[in-house]
Amino acid sequence: MRTAQHAQLALLLEVAGTPKPGNVDRRRDFDDLRFEHFLTGAVGACDGLEAAAAGEPVGESFDTAVAGMSQQRGGNAQFGALLLLVPLVRAATTWGLTPEEASATVEATTVDDAAGFYRAFEHVDVFVEEPPPEAEDLDVRRGADAIPALRDRELTLYDVMELSAPEDGVAAEWTNDFRRTFAAAETVRDGDGPVPDRVAEAFIELLAREPDTMVAKQHGPAVAESVRERAAMLRHAARDEREAFADELVERGVNPGTMADITAAATFVALERDGVVP
Amino acid sequence: MRTAQHAQLALLLEVAGTPKPGNVDRRRDFDDLRFEHFLTGAVGACDGLEAAAAGEPVGESFDTAVAGMSQQRGGNAQFGALLLLVPLVRAATTWGLTPEEASATVEATTVDDAAGFYRAFEHVDVFVEEPPPEAEDLDVRRGADAIPALRDRELTLYDVMELSAPEDGVAAEWTNDFRRTFAAAETVRDGDGPVPDRVAEAFIELLAREPDTMVAKQHGPAVAESVRERAAMLRHAARDEREAFADELVERGVNPGTMADITAAATFVALERDGVVP
Repeated sequence: MRTAQHAQLALLLEVAGTPKPGNVDRRRDFDDLRFEHFLTGAVGACDGLEAAAAGEPVGESFDTAVAGMSQQRGGNAQFGALLLLVPLVRAATTWGLTPEEASATVEATTVDDAAGFYRAFEHVDVFVEEPPPEAEDLDVRRGADAIPALRDRELTLYDVMELSAPEDGVAAEWTNDFRRTFAAAETVRDGDGPVPDRVAEAFIELLAREPDTMVAKQHGPAVAESVRERAAMLRHAARDEREAFADELVERGVNPGTMADITAAATFVALERDGVVP
Repeated sequence: MRTAQHAQLALLLEVAGTPKPGNVDRRRDFDDLRFEHFLTGAVGACDGLEAAAAGEPVGESFDTAVAGMSQQRGGNAQFGALLLLVPLVRAATTWGLTPEEASATVEATTVDDAAGFYRAFEHVDVFVEEPPPEAEDLDVRRGADAIPALRDRELTLYDVMELSAPEDGVAAEWTNDFRRTFAAAETVRDGDGPVPDRVAEAFIELLAREPDTMVAKQHGPAVAESVRERAAMLRHAARDEREAFADELVERGVNPGTMADITAAATFVALERDGVVP
């Protein structure tokens, strides 16, 4: 399978993995964002993933991937996952799929890449917080209108991610050598059950280690920390306890989407680098 | 979305539709053939589907699609579905996605297309019956070794399908203007719930109308007819009765795979021709 196909398959295996508490999975839907929106998003994203594999710039490839992903009625299914997959695909087809090469790839991004990232926000509503007053001209909700400010400040996409990293776990992967992505890939690689079960295990491991930034943004840091603690207790729990926690989080509308994004990226690494085959 | 992407999405929506009694679906796996094998098969098939969309010959495109689909550990996930999708994709990108143009596409197949079809059997084990003694040299299990016999007899792929049509519901679609495919597409198009629910509904409708030929081959015509009767009763039944029937068929190992193949093809028509968007 080609690199871009592995990325597409990673998106599918991520949503198939169950239980993934608080996320859409094989057994759970949200009211408006359902399983089939993730299937459709994964199919739609393929041109952008192929572009990244062919060496097109990260920002432009991401914009294409998000435009394709958005061709369904559920809204934002895989924005964050694509923000990780696009540079990883690019790294895999150029220098190699290692933390070092992934870092080199994101550090080499340009102001044009940042412009592509901002354009991607025009295709889909993404949950974001109010920017601080001094960064209002860089509010991602402005989409392409923010591009002149990017150019004035000479901000690359890496710079933009660096600004977001303290509050955004996906951006933090860009600036920390994709540390959690590569660690979680080992869980997917080393498990011995069906691949979607190993994907769900990787998700629980991620959730147990650090608070999810999407939960923190939407519900505050105390909720994010309590979810982390529950996940830590579930690491060695029976499956039905995990299922109950998954149902509970979906009911409460608590969505650790950042960890799902990292799980998709980790699954890609397991498929592409480690030769995992479902 | 491009035509080949619609075909890929149709494969994904088919397996996501639940309950689809006797088949792998969002809630059910077989012991060896699991949900993730269908996800992987759909991703792997994309090069063959793209080839068909680009106007490559039907037999060669099918061979490529099956080779790609087989890159997973579950075995035959979507052989029959691809045998319907490849000519439909070809029709859609050349003359149009109508019963007439689909028929014209399959009637125009050649001996080389038949050779591609036989080669496809080398990638994956497909359940087939013993051929009659006079057709032993055309046994599909011979794979490419049967190609000289095809050439001697000057059999096109359409001719091969015509020979199989009496016992094989997928082949019968080739020779009957894709009648059931286009009828089932209306069920997918006209429903008002989530698309996978409409896909599952189309499956039940198909199963209720005619006995499934895969069930007939594996368990005899009486079982196939009894499954048809049960499906007919379930058309207006509550969901939990359908779920119970689905569990029962999986437990009994009764797999109406032909209707699942036609359901995937019907879903493609609904996406590509009718503009259905999940």
